[in-house]
Amino acid sequence: MQYQKITPIFLEKIKAIVGADAVFTDEETLINYNHDETEDLKYNPEVVVKPKNAQEISGLLKLCNEAMVPLTPRGGGTGLSGGALPVFGGVLLSMEKFKAILSIDTENLQATVEPGVITEEFINAVAAHGLLYPVDPSSKGSCFIGGNVAHGSGGPRVVKYGTIREYILNLEVVLPTGEVIWTGANTLKYASGYNLTQLMIGSEGTLGVVTKIVTKLVPKSQHSVLMLGSFAENESACAAVSAIFRAGVTPSALEFMERRGVEWVIRFDDIKFDLKDGVNAFLMIEFDGDDLDVIFKDCERVNAVLEAQGCTEVLFADTAQQKEELWRMRRTMAESVKSNSVYKEEDTVVPRAALPKLINGIKEIGGRYGFESVCYGHAGDGNLHVNIIKAGMSDEDWKNKLKDGIKEIFELTSALGGTISGEHGIGLVQKEFMPIKYSEVHLNLMRSIKQAFDPQGILNPGKIF
Amino acid sequence: MQYQKITPIFLEKIKAIVGADAVFTDEETLINYNHDETEDLKYNPEVVVKPKNAQEISGLLKLCNEAMVPLTPRGGGTGLSGGALPVFGGVLLSMEKFKAILSIDTENLQATVEPGVITEEFINAVAAHGLLYPVDPSSKGSCFIGGNVAHGSGGPRVVKYGTIREYILNLEVVLPTGEVIWTGANTLKYASGYNLTQLMIGSEGTLGVVTKIVTKLVPKSQHSVLMLGSFAENESACAAVSAIFRAGVTPSALEFMERRGVEWVIRFDDIKFDLKDGVNAFLMIEFDGDDLDVIFKDCERVNAVLEAQGCTEVLFADTAQQKEELWRMRRTMAESVKSNSVYKEEDTVVPRAALPKLINGIKEIGGRYGFESVCYGHAGDGNLHVNIIKAGMSDEDWKNKLKDGIKEIFELTSALGGTISGEHGIGLVQKEFMPIKYSEVHLNLMRSIKQAFDPQGILNPGKIF
Repeated sequence: MQYQKITPIFLEKIKAIVGADAVFTDEETLINYNHDETEDLKYNPEVVVKPKNAQEISGLLKLCNEAMVPLTPRGGGTGLSGGALPVFGGVLLSMEKFKAILSIDTENLQATVEPGVITEEFINAVAAHGLLYPVDPSSKGSCFIGGNVAHGSGGPRVVKYGTIREYILNLEVVLPTGEVIWTGANTLKYASGYNLTQLMIGSEGTLGVVTKIVTKLVPKSQHSVLMLGSFAENESACAAVSAIFRAGVTPSALEFMERRGVEWVIRFDDIKFDLKDGVNAFLMIEFDGDDLDVIFKDCERVNAVLEAQGCTEVLFADTAQQKEELWRMRRTMAESVKSNSVYKEEDTVVPRAALPKLINGIKEIGGRYGFESVCYGHAGDGNLHVNIIKAGMSDEDWKNKLKDGIKEIFELTSALGGTISGEHGIGLVQKEFMPIKYSEVHLNLMRSIKQAFDPQGILNPGKIF
Repeated sequence: MQYQKITPIFLEKIKAIVGADAVFTDEETLINYNHDETEDLKYNPEVVVKPKNAQEISGLLKLCNEAMVPLTPRGGGTGLSGGALPVFGGVLLSMEKFKAILSIDTENLQATVEPGVITEEFINAVAAHGLLYPVDPSSKGSCFIGGNVAHGSGGPRVVKYGTIREYILNLEVVLPTGEVIWTGANTLKYASGYNLTQLMIGSEGTLGVVTKIVTKLVPKSQHSVLMLGSFAENESACAAVSAIFRAGVTPSALEFMERRGVEWVIRFDDIKFDLKDGVNAFLMIEFDGDDLDVIFKDCERVNAVLEAQGCTEVLFADTAQQKEELWRMRRTMAESVKSNSVYKEEDTVVPRAALPKLINGIKEIGGRYGFESVCYGHAGDGNLHVNIIKAGMSDEDWKNKLKDGIKEIFELTSALGGTISGEHGIGLVQKEFMPIKYSEVHLNLMRSIKQAFDPQGILNPGKIF
């Protein structure tokens, strides 16, 4: 695509649509919006625009579409695949003014919310009505719900409550050509033509700009119990994961953490934890429900499974504070590794019984390429985040050889029945690995869908493929 | 599109691909495959072909694509929207030889199954491993799982377990141009580009022919309790539905039945039931779980809600036989109405709190147009099947005026936040109503997606739009 640069006249046209006070070209703002949480990537936009409603976005998209100016939508800027980076410059569309929770419908257990609402704020708002919106990525304190939709984000509760796909009922979307549609209906079931709601979820802002979101809600459980199982080996902890489900129980969270991740959060994040010798891996297992007796029965069943799988110690978090400390340890891990090492994060996912093969394979590949890794994640879903650490790798190898190692990791996930991202998306940083998973025919189908929505290719160009 | 008729030479080419014994042109076969369970529709195919693997289907599609011969895939033939009817003649592709359950993976709680497997047989096969595949439409004894995928089929358990979308992880699909792809990965999470798995679900065989299906499974509950609540009015029964969920409980099924439907199954289907005077509507409410005490607590909470909502009597099905009798009553209803009256079935769905307005509106519209109706369905999902009965309507009005009445019903569902099909699909019979729900821009997006997959328009033409 041949994109056009933004001229002073074009800038005036933008101001005419959104108002001069919503348009920023100062250096400081451009720098603030030139990166997300993905490592090592910076792309300056030519202008940052902060519209306040769908109509303004429609005007903006029509304008950009006519002038062949690229436009990149951005949520909370917490992405880990570079999805919100304006690779070709142009307009950076920040959704930060879309902050309204428009309705919490306790009759239908639904809510309508704008995409710029911070996920945790939404979770808290519905919790005040005794309801649960269970999609809570680790970045929930700063990510936007619109970004979660765009990336098909997950979090620990997917294992019991399902992915974000099961909670998004309907979306108001501004198409790249400026038209506004609702993708579906506010219903739990929908068999009325191609499901554009589902197509939008995980499309990473390349098919349209979401301006309203209708979510399903479920009753919030009254109780939860959190257990922490210690293992001598990664492999036995990973093998315990599928054994837990085979026992017929469904935890509300089942997270894996490698010893090294725990060491880092203890060292850098002021988290108190008695890390014992000989313990090399942990499983955090949570059960929730309305009946404590039932929860304890499930815990007992899991306890027996853990013992049989070589778990050396099981700890119960008794108080709300203990629970929150353990969760904070898990949530802080990415940030901790990131702040204290040169690293790259990959988001592998496999059928859960393949986790032992996956983690052993990652370590074996690391051994051959000379990188180390800290692994943790939503093991209950087979979703393992791999933080690759530079460690003793030379700068040159890090720059030139690491890619081959990452490619091998993705080839492994793919061979195990998995894929190259479970919840972070493809964005900019995984797109070169797409051919591992997809044939050219398959990629061309995706490209034709993009073409159908965005014939000029102006919306979030350079992402996915 | 200008489709070509099948010539004797073309027939020989088909035989060369699938074998002569898989190709049928005799009158009896053509008639057997010229209809589904949709009322009043018959379209003869030119040839019925019964391939046995994806490779043969690939060859067949390439052949049809080159020669501009339409091809219509068909599952169990139980569809209610005419989706499997060969409107333009051509090849009728029966999936009846795809009958293998390829694996039940108890490690990962997944199964791989061919699309011609009868849904109930699959449910029973996984149940033998203590597992549940919860998608069970009323036609489960004869429908194919592939047809369920194509139509986004549901059934009573959606209300607790979610729709078929949450159980289909990955699909092997033969594209209209003959290439074979897997749409996704065998994983619970997936954020790796556009989700073609979700796009295929509910696309009614217009984008590709599904040849393998990977499903998620969940642990099967050990107990269930079924209650039947009686009401004097449709409206109060419908109003009780959202009140039940507001009480914080989630039934595993919540079905509505109008008195008239119960009368019909008693009269025509040899079902014994003590139908009392003054009772005009029923709610069937099921709870399942592993702990009977918890189930009974939920039943008590619902009992209190039902009383407050004007329920006149609550009956508990004590034995497995009583449960099955009640379920048979509900499942038989469609068949019963169908066999004993001139009728049309519509598949309305709204947010569940809107059910009272929906059912009152349907009756009011019927009053104006002179048709009667029997309503029943998955009220917990807001999904109401409307069986329109000819009753005193003249033949001419039935033929000419009824459509306007149906249009009004769909306008009502749409105005209530709902849509024109919850689980039966659009197929042939609802497509004229699509503009009620969708703008031309929206329909054009769907058409462009079709174009991307099927540039010549040979696969299941004439459906959806």
